[in-house]
Amino acid sequence: NYYQLIWSNVPFFTVPLARAHGKSFAHRSELRQAKRIVVKLGSAVVTRGDECGLALGFSHKYNVVAVLQNQGREMMIVTSGAVAFGKQRLRHEILLSQSVRQALHSGQNQLKDMSLPVLEARACAAAGQSGLMALYEAMFTQYSTCTAQILVTNLDFHDDQKRRNLNSTLHELLRMNIVPIINTNDAVVPPPEPNSNLQGVNVISIKDNDSLAARLAVEMRADLLIALSDVEGLYDSPPGSDDAKLLDTFYPGDQHSITYGTKSRVGIGGMEAKVKAALWALQGGTSVVIANGTHPKVTGHVITDIVEGKKVGTFFSEVKPAGPTVEQQTEMARSAGRTLASLEPEQRSDIICTLADLLTERKDEILSANKKDMEHAVSTGRLSPAMLKRLSLSSSKLNSLSIGLRQISVSSQDSVGRVLRRTRVANKLELEQITVPIGVLLVIFESRPDCLPQVSALAIASGNALLLKGGKEAANTNRILHELAQEALSIHGVKDAIQLVSTREEVEDLCHLEKMIDLIIPRGSSQLVRDIQRAAKSIPVLGHSEGICHVYVDHEASVDKAIKIIRDSKCDYPAACNAMETLLVHRDLLRTPLFDQIIDMLRTEHVKIHAGPKFASYLTFSPSEVKSLRTEYGDLECCIEVVDSMLEAVDHIHKYGSSHTDVIVTENEDTAEQFLQQLDSACVFWNASSRFADGYRFGLGAEVGISTARIHARGPVGLEGLLTTKWVLRGEGHTAADFSEQGSMTYLHENLPVAQVLPERRTTS
Amino acid sequence: NYYQLIWSNVPFFTVPLARAHGKSFAHRSELRQAKRIVVKLGSAVVTRGDECGLALGFSHKYNVVAVLQNQGREMMIVTSGAVAFGKQRLRHEILLSQSVRQALHSGQNQLKDMSLPVLEARACAAAGQSGLMALYEAMFTQYSTCTAQILVTNLDFHDDQKRRNLNSTLHELLRMNIVPIINTNDAVVPPPEPNSNLQGVNVISIKDNDSLAARLAVEMRADLLIALSDVEGLYDSPPGSDDAKLLDTFYPGDQHSITYGTKSRVGIGGMEAKVKAALWALQGGTSVVIANGTHPKVTGHVITDIVEGKKVGTFFSEVKPAGPTVEQQTEMARSAGRTLASLEPEQRSDIICTLADLLTERKDEILSANKKDMEHAVSTGRLSPAMLKRLSLSSSKLNSLSIGLRQISVSSQDSVGRVLRRTRVANKLELEQITVPIGVLLVIFESRPDCLPQVSALAIASGNALLLKGGKEAANTNRILHELAQEALSIHGVKDAIQLVSTREEVEDLCHLEKMIDLIIPRGSSQLVRDIQRAAKSIPVLGHSEGICHVYVDHEASVDKAIKIIRDSKCDYPAACNAMETLLVHRDLLRTPLFDQIIDMLRTEHVKIHAGPKFASYLTFSPSEVKSLRTEYGDLECCIEVVDSMLEAVDHIHKYGSSHTDVIVTENEDTAEQFLQQLDSACVFWNASSRFADGYRFGLGAEVGISTARIHARGPVGLEGLLTTKWVLRGEGHTAADFSEQGSMTYLHENLPVAQVLPERRTTS
Repeated sequence: NYYQLIWSNVPFFTVPLARAHGKSFAHRSELRQAKRIVVKLGSAVVTRGDECGLALGFSHKYNVVAVLQNQGREMMIVTSGAVAFGKQRLRHEILLSQSVRQALHSGQNQLKDMSLPVLEARACAAAGQSGLMALYEAMFTQYSTCTAQILVTNLDFHDDQKRRNLNSTLHELLRMNIVPIINTNDAVVPPPEPNSNLQGVNVISIKDNDSLAARLAVEMRADLLIALSDVEGLYDSPPGSDDAKLLDTFYPGDQHSITYGTKSRVGIGGMEAKVKAALWALQGGTSVVIANGTHPKVTGHVITDIVEGKKVGTFFSEVKPAGPTVEQQTEMARSAGRTLASLEPEQRSDIICTLADLLTERKDEILSANKKDMEHAVSTGRLSPAMLKRLSLSSSKLNSLSIGLRQISVSSQDSVGRVLRRTRVANKLELEQITVPIGVLLVIFESRPDCLPQVSALAIASGNALLLKGGKEAANTNRILHELAQEALSIHGVKDAIQLVSTREEVEDLCHLEKMIDLIIPRGSSQLVRDIQRAAKSIPVLGHSEGICHVYVDHEASVDKAIKIIRDSKCDYPAACNAMETLLVHRDLLRTPLFDQIIDMLRTEHVKIHAGPKFASYLTFSPSEVKSLRTEYGDLECCIEVVDSMLEAVDHIHKYGSSHTDVIVTENEDTAEQFLQQLDSACVFWNASSRFADGYRFGLGAEVGISTARIHARGPVGLEGLLTTKWVLRGEGHTAADFSEQGSMTYLHENLPVAQVLPERRTTS
Repeated sequence: NYYQLIWSNVPFFTVPLARAHGKSFAHRSELRQAKRIVVKLGSAVVTRGDECGLALGFSHKYNVVAVLQNQGREMMIVTSGAVAFGKQRLRHEILLSQSVRQALHSGQNQLKDMSLPVLEARACAAAGQSGLMALYEAMFTQYSTCTAQILVTNLDFHDDQKRRNLNSTLHELLRMNIVPIINTNDAVVPPPEPNSNLQGVNVISIKDNDSLAARLAVEMRADLLIALSDVEGLYDSPPGSDDAKLLDTFYPGDQHSITYGTKSRVGIGGMEAKVKAALWALQGGTSVVIANGTHPKVTGHVITDIVEGKKVGTFFSEVKPAGPTVEQQTEMARSAGRTLASLEPEQRSDIICTLADLLTERKDEILSANKKDMEHAVSTGRLSPAMLKRLSLSSSKLNSLSIGLRQISVSSQDSVGRVLRRTRVANKLELEQITVPIGVLLVIFESRPDCLPQVSALAIASGNALLLKGGKEAANTNRILHELAQEALSIHGVKDAIQLVSTREEVEDLCHLEKMIDLIIPRGSSQLVRDIQRAAKSIPVLGHSEGICHVYVDHEASVDKAIKIIRDSKCDYPAACNAMETLLVHRDLLRTPLFDQIIDMLRTEHVKIHAGPKFASYLTFSPSEVKSLRTEYGDLECCIEVVDSMLEAVDHIHKYGSSHTDVIVTENEDTAEQFLQQLDSACVFWNASSRFADGYRFGLGAEVGISTARIHARGPVGLEGLLTTKWVLRGEGHTAADFSEQGSMTYLHENLPVAQVLPERRTTS
């Protein structure tokens, strides 16, 4: 479906695998094509990390290496961890060979406390190798995948004959669909330098396997080398310092911009050595990602994430892209946004009017870009007719867009910096609460390109910086519309306040920029909203994922109004979130002409009826009974249920509704007012169609969405939902101590008048 | 530290392990004491689940069974999964024995496609047993823990001699600190009924291992049986139906309240059999928890969670507690809260005044309860002097609390139902936006019991239902204060709107009640706030985790004001979140008397000074250089940094601040206004101490906290932050279609006057 399209721009499985043949990939999104992949698992990953269990785990879900292999890729593993494995094994053997009887007789705890001799790393490696291999084999056997063990030393790469032998063996294994598991033959290398990183055991420096993996990747002309250890990736300065930033992508030319720390968890120079190995592989034509393999993750897996092109760890790329990264775009937007917020209201209004003008003046450019997108969409056949309609722009659409923008420009005049409250806290100490922009907004929208100028105008009016992430299928239209928005912004020098994010960026990655983005507004299917709510754990999301709206017809309802409202609520636009899904009918109406008229009308309109359990029990024959009273049909279908009273209707809605919009139809004002008071939904209507729950119909101008959240904005959200407040206090050297018992001042807390401004004035065209 | 105390009321490691000896535990929190534990791993857990890798995982972090064993518990595992294991093994063998050459020559994909004979379950079990055991052994060897294999049949329990043999063998193993791994000896049992649950292989019904585990647990007098499969636990009606609720605790007497489904993933009656086995074990004196072992989890582990008393799966208990569960409390609170919201404002105000009266009238009761808590705290010596001070109440504290409550009662008059906006949408179609309560609040507070009446009053004033979770050390004081709050609420029949959650409940469990709680407000240390923000993924949290406040002294500052404000901001109460942490000084001030006076004052006040990098570069000698410019000292310490201009100060604060409260000291009004405008913090002050950032000082009455979030409430939050809005539309049968091109109506969107009410009027005492 379409959602899949924007989420991961091209579905994973449709990407053809491709051998890079000595040319590394330019962008993370291309990593999906990688056919031959070397995965290097550091000692920390194999012995300590959770990713070990997950990376190599024998469960069906998580042996991702086997899964990738079964996708037709050629996977190779370079493993560490034999030393740690062997250590445990030897320790166990030593314990057993000491007098077990003695240990058993003197109590169970002694086993743990017995002192152990210091174990030699090479012996440990030898002892651990077999256990490690057995484990790998068990894990791959689950997938009917064979593994093969290869032990190498660095010398094997220097001797040409040995190198050729190794090469042809590995190629033969790959050809036979066998996963080679490669490790250094530690038992036959010279004794290592003492190094007590790993729990008191002398280990062979971790550096060895990094360079081994790099050499192997280049030798085998692998497309991708994934090097997992317990570091996140490459930072621009020593991790932990105030300014240290994890580099998403590293270009060989940028090496001077890196400051390596003098200390790190992997020892002096550990990261430098990793980078050296990575650059070496990159030069040899293999793309490299360095990432942390020891983080527990609920969904997915670091290796899968990397191969799916997600922003995990540091990606090494030879090709520096022309444009800024999304992080740079966010920084630019925030900075320009601050200037935008400090402009005069007239200037912001000015920008919006300019954009409105541009939409009509540059109509031809826009429509020709839109035509390209339409043609492409038609030729690929990926979009449904409804979606094609949403994608298409027309001269008249642009005109009404332009008119809408002018309305927003009017209401922008008194939005930012409005004084909401003034208090004289004490003599010469005055407090103001004023409206300010929220900061940086991320708006994710599906194929509708007209969303772009609307949302841009709302962001400009409210002084917010804006990141726009549109669907790939509207790429051309979005590009020109964004250019026009920037053109309008430039008249007051704030061009960068609105940024269009590249279609290559993953929505999920954007949802993780919690230090940079203040509010996410998804505009699209409820599936999109739900997925983004899930992905954006630390950033608030404004929107609604469900619209289960009810119309309750009271026994004192007017026949005409009931019929009119039910028809409009269900049939005006059944796919809308504010369409009726459940019709609640007062029991007394059941055997009345009104009820028959309702049913007749629904039949005439081809609405499929489902019966709620109570309704079904009233009928001798009945329509299909509902599976759940919480269904959002989004189509010409609805559920009918019977209630005994208005209060039962309220209870029903509280229990099964989504607090979006609910309607009562009655002529009894008391009943209506009770319903309106008691019902806890964002919109509660009396004798009006649920379809009025809409920012434009409410008179808010364009809306950024409808919120079913209970804090901040609720219901249709216009300009005001994009504002927050700040407190400004002006004094003359006042201190809290002045107000203490010994102090000379007392609090007045006198409310001062605030110039009353009606919120979001609007005139309709 | 204290936080640890409230978080998991009694630290895990201090609980002595205890044999229950035939008496099951009454409450989940007692499961921590369980010494002898049987863990039953269903086939789904062993073969499919992630928990398998985690449950048995060979990483140090996650072989939780071994970890529990090493804590001194006696762990036993009842395992399934041999069939699935054997299936894969046999499949592999069959493949290899078919012409491998042929497969290799005809391409790699054929291996996967080759058809396989149907495998017999018992043969699979026999073939899989050895592999499964090898895996368990490898996993436990990592922890230097021995395992032993026991194969049993149901008959072994019926024959007395066999049962005694089994019993003594198991006891001997436990005595030797060895973990027995028990499985049914499937190879020697009668052929199973066909059942194609498990990927086309005939399996032995999963029921067997449930009853085996129960029998074994009772036979061995285990304290706890943890039965993990792929079902969440016991539901009160078939899972998936509208009303199905997972039971947190199940009492044998409640069995009639359960409706078993006719179908479930584990086959007809699967759950019933599980429950039967569980009840059998419970009757035998073993506590039981049924839970899902196949969910991936980032932190912790289902087994650990269960043993820590967290709400995972269904806990079987013989003792039904007297009070309601926390879920029932939430339901009661929400329902009574709705009534509270529909009361007249005067009635809510009335309740608050009554509570204010009760605080003074029943002073003696309160103080004597508080005395008990104080004595207990002193005797255990767990609280620091500062915390003891916060815990203690006095007659005068109660008086001022009572005065504060009367102020809240005044402001409560115009809070709920206030009309914020009125619009004539069209002829006879009128829209109102009115304030309504948020819903159910959860307030978590540390030792300060005076928080309870304050927060209660704010909740009553705003018509919200309230769950209170206080610290254990204030249990007696909180109980009496809560009783008084309920007494006050009863005068208008809404007693249940405020609920005190038992100290036994885990904060983390409460954070997961996302369908029941609308807003969480933690009141306590920033560590508490951070932990709750992490735990409460789907519920918004109102609060701030950091307060890095700055005072910027401009080169045009007044000497007196600067000294006064810096002293007050840093020294008035250094531990407060609104205390100054970084002093920014204009460069031109460096060699002036003002600067010397500042330094002298800080020295006199014993403030330890850290130098920012730029400041340090100006000095020949320098105080210790800061590690990070983002430090919250919370003590008589601060950082001093030099900036070249007001704008650089703004940049510094944007970069290193926490957007809490920042101050400029200057006599230049233009500079000040620019600073106030440009700086993006919740509170920005000119010539006033940062300590004014406080709800009471702002004139908001009591505050529920200070928010550094950017949406909803920002800065000090009073009554208004506990309100949201709803939209009320009143029509006469209006439909959206009336306004279409063919329709007869047009939008007016005329703003109607709203009676202006000043927000939160307050008079000071």
